[in-house]
Amino acid sequence: MSRTESAVDLAFGDDGLVTIVAQDASSGAVLMVAHASPEAVERTHETGLAHYHSRSRDELWQKGESSGHVQHVEEIRVDCDGDALLYRVSQEGGACHTGHESCFYRTLDGETVGERVFDPDAVYE
Amino acid sequence: MSRTESAVDLAFGDDGLVTIVAQDASSGAVLMVAHASPEAVERTHETGLAHYHSRSRDELWQKGESSGHVQHVEEIRVDCDGDALLYRVSQEGGACHTGHESCFYRTLDGETVGERVFDPDAVYE
Repeated sequence: MSRTESAVDLAFGDDGLVTIVAQDASSGAVLMVAHASPEAVERTHETGLAHYHSRSRDELWQKGESSGHVQHVEEIRVDCDGDALLYRVSQEGGACHTGHESCFYRTLDGETVGERVFDPDAVYE
Repeated sequence: MSRTESAVDLAFGDDGLVTIVAQDASSGAVLMVAHASPEAVERTHETGLAHYHSRSRDELWQKGESSGHVQHVEEIRVDCDGDALLYRVSQEGGACHTGHESCFYRTLDGETVGERVFDPDAVYE
């Protein structure tokens, strides 16, 4: 458990991270789930641009830094036990590396229900 | 990594769980973040009622089993890498044990923005 600069105490896990849900503030669409370190939360709070901590690369990461698909954070909410945050964002382009608006573009039964908003081959090398 | 009965492969973590986001299907409100085992996902899929796996009690848990505040699951979505699911639900009562509709009832700055929809003292012993 450690703290970041906020009025609400956050409960970072054994891995030093909290879970983040990013939601489109206008449409309400749930865009993605990722994780954040205290530094990522602080950078998000300070800059108004969504930052995360990549578990696979073990590093701070600004969403859209290379793709341009940044998330402008309108509000950060905290859940009751402080181990999950909700970033309410305005998303440029799409949130998913597959080109979809949301990472949740499929049902459990395999049906594609989400919209593809960009061509990933044109965005990622 | 293990699989559950679905058309989409799920990527359960080292702890055997996936992350679940529950969202109100009508209002779009993000209600809570929790976790699910393969059994919890299967029970949710089969019964249409949201099930989770409690990490603190290490057991299967049906939301609302004691409070009556069940979640009727209208759709289950999977994210791009299969380690997070979105339960789109119709929530009876409120999702949060504090009596709020959503566990995300506060901003990071400590402002209460969510609605209290029940008295927890009247629901939980």
